[in-house]
Amino acid sequence: MSDATPKKTALVVSAHSADFVWRAGGAIALHSRLGYQVHVVCLSFGERGESAKLWRKGEMTEQRVKASRREEAQAAAEILGASIEFFDLGDYPLRADKEALFRLADVFRQVQPHFVLTHSLKDPYNYDHPLATHLTQEARIIAQAEGYRPGEPIVGAPPVYLFEPHQPEQCEWKPDVLLDITEVWDKKYRAIQCMAGQEHLWEYYTRVAQQRGVQAKRNVGITSSKNIIYGEGYQSIFPRVTGELA
Amino acid sequence: MSDATPKKTALVVSAHSADFVWRAGGAIALHSRLGYQVHVVCLSFGERGESAKLWRKGEMTEQRVKASRREEAQAAAEILGASIEFFDLGDYPLRADKEALFRLADVFRQVQPHFVLTHSLKDPYNYDHPLATHLTQEARIIAQAEGYRPGEPIVGAPPVYLFEPHQPEQCEWKPDVLLDITEVWDKKYRAIQCMAGQEHLWEYYTRVAQQRGVQAKRNVGITSSKNIIYGEGYQSIFPRVTGELA
Amino acid sequence: MSDATPKKTALVVSAHSADFVWRAGGAIALHSRLGYQVHVVCLSFGERGESAKLWRKGEMTEQRVKASRREEAQAAAEILGASIEFFDLGDYPLRADKEALFRLADVFRQVQPHFVLTHSLKDPYNYDHPLATHLTQEARIIAQAEGYRPGEPIVGAPPVYLFEPHQPEQCEWKPDVLLDITEVWDKKYRAIQCMAGQEHLWEYYTRVAQQRGVQAKRNVGITSSKNIIYGEGYQSIFPRVTGELA
Amino acid sequence: MSDATPKKTALVVSAHSADFVWRAGGAIALHSRLGYQVHVVCLSFGERGESAKLWRKGEMTEQRVKASRREEAQAAAEILGASIEFFDLGDYPLRADKEALFRLADVFRQVQPHFVLTHSLKDPYNYDHPLATHLTQEARIIAQAEGYRPGEPIVGAPPVYLFEPHQPEQCEWKPDVLLDITEVWDKKYRAIQCMAGQEHLWEYYTRVAQQRGVQAKRNVGITSSKNIIYGEGYQSIFPRVTGELA
Amino acid sequence: MSDATPKKTALVVSAHSADFVWRAGGAIALHSRLGYQVHVVCLSFGERGESAKLWRKGEMTEQRVKASRREEAQAAAEILGASIEFFDLGDYPLRADKEALFRLADVFRQVQPHFVLTHSLKDPYNYDHPLATHLTQEARIIAQAEGYRPGEPIVGAPPVYLFEPHQPEQCEWKPDVLLDITEVWDKKYRAIQCMAGQEHLWEYYTRVAQQRGVQAKRNVGITSSKNIIYGEGYQSIFPRVTGELA
Amino acid sequence: MSDATPKKTALVVSAHSADFVWRAGGAIALHSRLGYQVHVVCLSFGERGESAKLWRKGEMTEQRVKASRREEAQAAAEILGASIEFFDLGDYPLRADKEALFRLADVFRQVQPHFVLTHSLKDPYNYDHPLATHLTQEARIIAQAEGYRPGEPIVGAPPVYLFEPHQPEQCEWKPDVLLDITEVWDKKYRAIQCMAGQEHLWEYYTRVAQQRGVQAKRNVGITSSKNIIYGEGYQSIFPRVTGELA
Repeated sequence: MSDATPKKTALVVSAHSADFVWRAGGAIALHSRLGYQVHVVCLSFGERGESAKLWRKGEMTEQRVKASRREEAQAAAEILGASIEFFDLGDYPLRADKEALFRLADVFRQVQPHFVLTHSLKDPYNYDHPLATHLTQEARIIAQAEGYRPGEPIVGAPPVYLFEPHQPEQCEWKPDVLLDITEVWDKKYRAIQCMAGQEHLWEYYTRVAQQRGVQAKRNVGITSSKNIIYGEGYQSIFPRVTGELA
Repeated sequence: MSDATPKKTALVVSAHSADFVWRAGGAIALHSRLGYQVHVVCLSFGERGESAKLWRKGEMTEQRVKASRREEAQAAAEILGASIEFFDLGDYPLRADKEALFRLADVFRQVQPHFVLTHSLKDPYNYDHPLATHLTQEARIIAQAEGYRPGEPIVGAPPVYLFEPHQPEQCEWKPDVLLDITEVWDKKYRAIQCMAGQEHLWEYYTRVAQQRGVQAKRNVGITSSKNIIYGEGYQSIFPRVTGELA
Repeated sequence: MSDATPKKTALVVSAHSADFVWRAGGAIALHSRLGYQVHVVCLSFGERGESAKLWRKGEMTEQRVKASRREEAQAAAEILGASIEFFDLGDYPLRADKEALFRLADVFRQVQPHFVLTHSLKDPYNYDHPLATHLTQEARIIAQAEGYRPGEPIVGAPPVYLFEPHQPEQCEWKPDVLLDITEVWDKKYRAIQCMAGQEHLWEYYTRVAQQRGVQAKRNVGITSSKNIIYGEGYQSIFPRVTGELA
Repeated sequence: MSDATPKKTALVVSAHSADFVWRAGGAIALHSRLGYQVHVVCLSFGERGESAKLWRKGEMTEQRVKASRREEAQAAAEILGASIEFFDLGDYPLRADKEALFRLADVFRQVQPHFVLTHSLKDPYNYDHPLATHLTQEARIIAQAEGYRPGEPIVGAPPVYLFEPHQPEQCEWKPDVLLDITEVWDKKYRAIQCMAGQEHLWEYYTRVAQQRGVQAKRNVGITSSKNIIYGEGYQSIFPRVTGELA
Repeated sequence: MSDATPKKTALVVSAHSADFVWRAGGAIALHSRLGYQVHVVCLSFGERGESAKLWRKGEMTEQRVKASRREEAQAAAEILGASIEFFDLGDYPLRADKEALFRLADVFRQVQPHFVLTHSLKDPYNYDHPLATHLTQEARIIAQAEGYRPGEPIVGAPPVYLFEPHQPEQCEWKPDVLLDITEVWDKKYRAIQCMAGQEHLWEYYTRVAQQRGVQAKRNVGITSSKNIIYGEGYQSIFPRVTGELA
Repeated sequence: MSDATPKKTALVVSAHSADFVWRAGGAIALHSRLGYQVHVVCLSFGERGESAKLWRKGEMTEQRVKASRREEAQAAAEILGASIEFFDLGDYPLRADKEALFRLADVFRQVQPHFVLTHSLKDPYNYDHPLATHLTQEARIIAQAEGYRPGEPIVGAPPVYLFEPHQPEQCEWKPDVLLDITEVWDKKYRAIQCMAGQEHLWEYYTRVAQQRGVQAKRNVGITSSKNIIYGEGYQSIFPRVTGELA
C-alpha cells in the first residue's frame, strides 16, 4: 500500500473492558484482516459490575481488579489485531462529563473512522451500555462540527453499528446486518478465552455466534455457495448510502 | 459475458402501472445500466384510482383507460431498460386469489431475482399498495418452497426493498438505504414524463429525488468526494448479510 | 339555512349495533346539535357476540335477537339525533366481500361526510372491530376514486377518528383528540340506557366519560374557564390541516 | 382425581406439523407432567414448505410427504404426552375459510383450555405462522360468544402465549415469560429427534433452549437456588390477572 | 415465623410523597396482608408541583408544605401497612446525583426486595416520574454488582412493575398485569383520604380502580368464580420466570 | 384591542439561532399576522455546529461567529414579526443546568403562551435538538406548578408542537398537523435568506414547504377550494381538546 492510499480505520467504543470481545470481536478480527486499523476505547474497566469472579477471590481492591481487567482486555485486543486505550471513567454507574465527551471527540478526529461500533440504544439490565452509546453518538457529532477546535480536520459521517446486547429482545435491539465471521472465529474464541473472570459466558457467546451464523445463511438464501457458520448481528443507526442494491 | 456467468436480475412489483416509475425508476435505470435484467410486474393498471385526468376527459371506458395506462407504462419501462408484464387484477380494490399468488410465485421462479422492490407495509391513503407488498412477500416465500411445483429450481432469499410511498411518515416507512441515482436521473425524469395523466406529480417526485439526494450526501459525510444530487430511499425487510461493514 | 349552504354531515361505522352508542354517542349528539346530519351504519347486529343476556333468556333465535338489537339501536340513534341503517353482515365473525365494500363506498358518496368515526386499528378481544375499521378506510378510498362509478361526485378527504375500545392500552389505541361532550351527556346516557341487554356496561362507560372529561380539563389547562365534566377520546388517522395552531 | 375436580387443559395451535415441537415441546411436556391434558391442532402438515429433505429424496408425492409428516408429529406428541389432530388445510399458502374457523372454535369449546399456545403475530419469513395466530385468536373469540351454537358451554378467557419464531427480532417477538423446561428437556429433545426431515434444526433449537435457560436464570436472580439450564420464551397477548406480584 | 423463613419484602419508589397511594396503594395493602414487609421511599414531598391546594391557603412556606405532605404520607403508609422514608431531593425538578443513587442502592441492599414498584418510563406531563423510574432501575443494577461495597450481600433480580400514570395512553404505558385489590380496597380508599390536599383526585382514582377491576374480570374469563371489583394495573419491565403457564 | 382582551401569544424554543427560521418560520409569520405576539428563545447561537461557512472564512473567533449569527437571527425574527432573545448556553454540546431551566420557566410565566413550538423528541444527527425539546417540556411543567415562585400566575396547559427535523423519518417524527403557510411564504423565504451562512439549505427548505403543501392539499381533499402551495408539518405532544370534530 502506498502512502497515497490512507488506511481504512474503525472505532469501537466499549462501556466496560470486555464488552468489545463478546459483542464485536469477530468484526474487529475480520476488518483487521481486511487491512483496517481498528481502535478500541474502553470507557471503564467494568471493575464493579462485571468482575464478580475476581471480587469473590477475596483480598481484592478496586485497583487490583482494574489491573487484571486491563491485562485481559489488552491480550484480547492483541489477538484481534486492534489498538486499545482506557478512559477509566468508572462503572456502575458510568458517568461522562464534558471533558470525557471532548476526549472521545478527539479520538474520532484522530482515528477518522470509516465505521463505528458501540452498544445498543436501550438495556434495562445495564445502564452503562446505553450511556456509552449516547456518548459515542454525541462525540461523533461534535467531531463533525467545524467550530469544535477550528482548523482541525473534521470527521465525515461514518456509519454507526450497534452490537448485540445480552438479551436482545429486552433491549429492543433488532439486527439489520449479519456479519459473516466464520473465517476469524478461531481468533474471536481465543480472545474470549482471555476473559478468565467471566468463563460462564464463553459458551453463551459461542452459541450466539452459531445462531447468528445460521440466520445469516438463511438470509443469503439456500442456493448460495457461502458456508457461513459463525456470525455477528448489528443494528444500523443511519441509512446506508449505496450505488447498488443486493 | 459468457454463458457460465448468469446475468444478475431484479424483480419489481407495482400495484398500479405507474407506481414503479415514481418510486423505483432510478433503481431500475441504474441496475439496468449495471447489467441487471430488471423485470416489472404491474398487478393492475390503476384504472379506477389513479387515472383521474383520463376519466375527466369524458367518453371514457375502463378498457380505454387501461389501454392508455398500459402504453404509458410500457414506454416508461423501455426508457428505464426493464421488461414489463401486466396481471390486470383490477384496482380500488386490488384483490389477489391463490391463482394470482401462484402466478407471481412463478415469476419469482423464472426471474430468480437478486433483489426485489415493492411497496411499503402500510398506507392509510391506499389499500392496494400494502396488499401488493404482502402478495409479493408471500409469493417469494412460496417460490422458496421445495414442495411447490417440486423439481423446479427454487429461489434463494433475495432481499426485499420497499420503495417510498407518497406520504412517508404517515405510512410508517423509514428508509435505511439511500440509493444514488444521480447518473440516471435524466432517464427517470423522461420515464416520469410518460405519465401524461399525472402531470401534477412530476415536480413532486423531482423534489423527492432532490431531498433524498441531499440526505444521501449527508449520510456519506461531507468529506466524501461523491457528488450526489438525486436519490431514492428504500426500507429493507430482511437483515443484510455482508463480509465487510462500512 | 338556505339551499346554497349544504348541510354538514358525518358518517359513523359501527361493527355491531351498540358500538356507536358506548363509543361515539357523545360525538353524535353534539354534532347533531351543531347542525350536522349524522348517519350511522351498523355492519351487524352483534347478534352472536354481544347479546349474551338475550341468549340466556331461552327460547331465543338469531332472528329474534337481531330484531331486539335493531330496536335498541334505532331508539338510541333517535335520541342522539342520527339516521341509521343496518348492513346485516353477520358477526363473530364479521366478514365483508366486495359487494359490502362497494355498498359502504356508495354510502360515502351519498353522505359526503365531513368526518368519519369508526373503531380502533387493533383489538385482540374483538376481531370484528378492526375489520370494520379497515372496511371503512378502504370504502373511503374507493369513494375518492374517479374511476369508481365514473361521473358520480367523488368524496374529498374527510378525517377519520377512531373511537375508544373497551381496553384501550391493549388495543394500542392512543387518543389525540378529547371531545367535550358535557352538554350532551344526558342524551348519551339516555341512549346508553336503550341497551337493555348490556346493562353491566352502563356504569363502565359513564366512568370512561368522566375520566376523559378530567383528562380533557387537564389538557386545556387549569386556568381555562371551561367546565368539562364528560369527554370522549378519539385517535386520528390522518394529519389535520389547519390555518391556526392552538 | 375425583369427578368434582375437572382436569386442567391446554390447547396448542401449530401452523405446520412440526412447529409445536421446536417451539413449545417443553411447555407441552412440562404441563403434561403437571397433570394437564394438552391437545395439539396442526393446521397443515407443512408438506410444501417445511419438507425440503423429503422432496429431495425423489419419487415423492404430496400424499407421501403428508403421511411421513403425520407419523413424525404423532410420535413427537406421544413422547410429549399430548393428544394431536390434523386439519390438513394445506400450506404455502395456508388458508382458512369460515368452516376451518368454526372447526377450531369447536375445539376450543371441547377442550376448554386453561391456556393457549400459538405462533408470533408477525413473521416476514413465513406467512402461514401469523395466519395461524390470527385464526386461533378469532376462534377463541367466537368460542366465547353466547350466540355461537347457543346452549353449548362457552369458553372463558384463557391466556394466549406466543411461542418463539425462528428469527425472533425480525418477527418483532419479545418474550415476557421464560418457562423453565430443564426437567423435561430430555423429552423435548427426544421429540425433536422424531423430525427426521429437519435434522439441521436439532442443534439450532437445542441452543435456543440453552440461551433461554441462561436468560431465565438471569431474570430470577443470581441468589436464587433454582438451577435452570433449558428454557422456552413466550410472549403474552393479554394482561395476567393475579392476586400476588413477584 | 421462624428465623429460617426470611420474610418476603417489597420496595416502592415514589417520586412525590403521594404517588404511592394513588398508584400502588392496593398492591401495598394486599402484600402487607400476605405477610410482606413493604418499604416506601419518597424521593421528594411533591412540595412544589403537587401541593397546589396547600399553596393557595396563603401564609405558606416550602417547609410547611413539606411537613404537611410528610404527615399525610406517613398516615397513608400506616394504613396500608408499609414503612416509609423520605429522601427530600426536591421536586419540579427532581434531580438525583450519585449520592442519591447510592443511597437508593443501599436501600435495595437492606430491603432485598422480592419485587419493586415504581413509575412509568415516560410521562410528558411530569418529568419527575420517569426520572424516579430510571433512578430506581439504575440503583437496582448497582445493588446487584459484586464490586459495589464489596463483601455486602448483593440483591438478586427482583421484578420491577410500573404503576399507572395519570393519563396512561399518553405515557405509552400498557398494563400486562392486573392485580385484584378488591379485598383491600377499603384500606386503599382510607389511605387516599389522607391526601387532604388533592381531594379532586379521590374519585378519579376510585374510578381507575373500578375500570381495572372490570378489565381484570374480563381477562380472567366470565366463567371464573372470582368476584373482582377493584384492580390496579402494572407494566412489567423484565420477563417473568415461571414453572407453569396459566 | 382593549385591555379586556389579552393578546394571544406563542413561544418558540430553538436550540440554535437559525432553527426557528427553517422549521417554524411559516407558523411564526402566520400567527404574527393573526395577531399573536410570538416570542423566540434561542438557547445557543449554533456557533460551533451550524456555522461551517463562517469558520471556513478564516480569521474567525467564537465571539465573531456568535455576533454574526445573532444579527442574522434578529433580522429573520423581525421579518417574521417575532421578538427574540438569546440564552447563549453554548452548542455542540448544548447543556442546561437548573438555572437555565428556571430561566426558561420564567419565560413561560411571562409569555403565557397559547401554544409552544420546539424540536423533535429524537435526532440521531443532532443531540442539541432533543435536549432543547426536553428542556422546553420540563420548563413548561415547572411553570405550571403553584409551588414554583409561589404567588406568581402559573401557566395553563398550552399545546406543544414539534417542528420538522432535517431527516424526519430518521428522527421518528410524524406530522399530525399540516399548517397552511401559503400566504406568508414570501416572508418565510425572506427570513430564510437572512441565513447567509447556510445558503445550501435555502432550496432544501423551500422544497420541504412545497412537499408539505402538496400533502396538506391531499389531506383536505380534492374537492376543497383551498389553494395550498406551501406548508409546515408539526407533531403534537398532547391530545387536542375540542368541541367540534372536522
